[in-house]
Amino acid sequence: MTAIRAYAAQSPSSGVAPFSLVRRQPRADDVVIEIDYCGICHTDIHFVHNDWGMTQYPVVPGHEIVGRVSAVGSGVRRFAVGDRVGVGCLVDSCRACASCNDGLEQYCERGWVATYNGIDREDGSPTYGGYSERIVVSERFVLRMPDALDPAAAAPLLCAGITTYSPLRHFGVANGHRVAVVGMGGLGHMGVKFARALGADVTLFTRSSDKREEALRCGAHDVVVSSDPAQMQAAAARFDFILDTVPVAHDLNPYVNALKRDGTLILVGMLAPTDPPLHTLPLVFARRRIAGSLIGGLPETQQMLDFCAEHGIVCDIERLDIRNINEAYVRMQRGDVRYRFVIDMATLRGV
Amino acid sequence: MTAIRAYAAQSPSSGVAPFSLVRRQPRADDVVIEIDYCGICHTDIHFVHNDWGMTQYPVVPGHEIVGRVSAVGSGVRRFAVGDRVGVGCLVDSCRACASCNDGLEQYCERGWVATYNGIDREDGSPTYGGYSERIVVSERFVLRMPDALDPAAAAPLLCAGITTYSPLRHFGVANGHRVAVVGMGGLGHMGVKFARALGADVTLFTRSSDKREEALRCGAHDVVVSSDPAQMQAAAARFDFILDTVPVAHDLNPYVNALKRDGTLILVGMLAPTDPPLHTLPLVFARRRIAGSLIGGLPETQQMLDFCAEHGIVCDIERLDIRNINEAYVRMQRGDVRYRFVIDMATLRGV
Repeated sequence: MTAIRAYAAQSPSSGVAPFSLVRRQPRADDVVIEIDYCGICHTDIHFVHNDWGMTQYPVVPGHEIVGRVSAVGSGVRRFAVGDRVGVGCLVDSCRACASCNDGLEQYCERGWVATYNGIDREDGSPTYGGYSERIVVSERFVLRMPDALDPAAAAPLLCAGITTYSPLRHFGVANGHRVAVVGMGGLGHMGVKFARALGADVTLFTRSSDKREEALRCGAHDVVVSSDPAQMQAAAARFDFILDTVPVAHDLNPYVNALKRDGTLILVGMLAPTDPPLHTLPLVFARRRIAGSLIGGLPETQQMLDFCAEHGIVCDIERLDIRNINEAYVRMQRGDVRYRFVIDMATLRGV
Repeated sequence: MTAIRAYAAQSPSSGVAPFSLVRRQPRADDVVIEIDYCGICHTDIHFVHNDWGMTQYPVVPGHEIVGRVSAVGSGVRRFAVGDRVGVGCLVDSCRACASCNDGLEQYCERGWVATYNGIDREDGSPTYGGYSERIVVSERFVLRMPDALDPAAAAPLLCAGITTYSPLRHFGVANGHRVAVVGMGGLGHMGVKFARALGADVTLFTRSSDKREEALRCGAHDVVVSSDPAQMQAAAARFDFILDTVPVAHDLNPYVNALKRDGTLILVGMLAPTDPPLHTLPLVFARRRIAGSLIGGLPETQQMLDFCAEHGIVCDIERLDIRNINEAYVRMQRGDVRYRFVIDMATLRGV
């Protein structure tokens, strides 16, 4: 065990700063990964600031990790030194419950182990994320990164990508469906790309019209400005599926009304406890549904990466020197990023 | 056209009282039905009292109608004089939209015509319901009543029955599923019977334990007293489907928490506009769903009646002399009926 470089937050107001970290020696089923890129998810900021009251400091954020295998444990079969690999939001789960057996580790009935701010099931140590040189992860929770994908732009696929891909596939989005995406951020722009690639007629709901060109470039056929009552009225009963990526409490009712009969509103962004007032009559009168969906399981995440390679899909990113990360957090909090910051981990070597 | 006897409300506070009514002469596609029985739905009371602000007085309530064909129009093919038939909540729809073409007339995109307090699409006259001697209804909206069903006890199948049967079938309740029903009223007791007949393991959620024996008699395997936090805790993540028949605003969150991963909470009773505060995180973290469902279409209603005949299912009813109807309304409002009043329309002849 040798100390490696990382960035960590030490308190809710400290920001993230250089930190010295020890990674475990590989167990039999472990893959050791030298990290090349790590995307920044809004969740990272919430954990750094302890917004959800569950942060254990120091916390090393980062769960959109791409790197190369530098060593493998004796029992590892699927990976070899030199492979390009990825790690997402999960690094372990119980591996025995019905959800784990279904490859839906994100719904593990005993609780999955998060890539950071989690507790290792074997030795009880805290898990540390991707703002670091290296990570050691059990083989089952490591993804193959297709060569066709730019590794930096592929990093956010491991959270923003799978979070939008999984529900679109699970709920059956297919050729000819009318699909809307609410919000044009890290998740939203991926939702637009995936829905388009699945053959849907795609609309973006956005609060202001200045996202229009970007949305069309990402594959949307249409844009509805949700702050315009006339446009919302015209969108009534129009969509088979609406993927709502907005990460803060908001009124769901206008989107329920925009669903056709048997349409489904899928919530993926709502990661803070909220109580939006919900009108239930519009559900009853058109047999509409509201559903939630959480990231994705390991098999589906691999499927998503392969789908991206096949369809030439990656995230739109801005590369970041890790020394500018606190500035990047500030920009993210005012929505000033198109659409994901990705830390170039080579910049950590100079710190 | 001859005047017939009926009961109508003339104002929000009048109750229902004897009324003279003219039914239209049969059109080519019409079936003339002499009414034997009419169930009383809570909706009737809401319309009589103008609770929803949309009542056009005089209103003749009643949409759980069973009778015999006394005449048919020249174009009627499926019914003949003497046939036992039923009429439910709908007597017409546009017959041209996607929903109507799918046999889902209850979701007609141009709005279906309610059995009472509706407007006839052809002549603009008000529709009057089943608290009357006779009704004239277009063939498409008339159901065959299987001989095996007691006609009085079958009347409420046309609303309470189909409202619970349709979502259980649509959302795929099948052998081995764990299904819960919330509320043991007219709808709830039918939900228990149908879920059991479909092969599910059935639980009743009820506020007080005094419904236990009744629930078991209707086919429930278990009863959970929803006012007992320990019992609710033990029911967490237990059900594939929960059919919520409660007709007033209430907290949905305990029922969402009682769903397994991928479970569905189905709302069928929520017929007043309400704003229950909804926690969305439990949807996201277990990919749960909330859905609404409204009565059923004509093909599925016929299927339900045939299913009832095959499985020996009818409603538990209390027969009523129409002269006691206002008293029955009072009893219904305090929940004092097991589980549906059905008016014996022979009693109208003496009025």
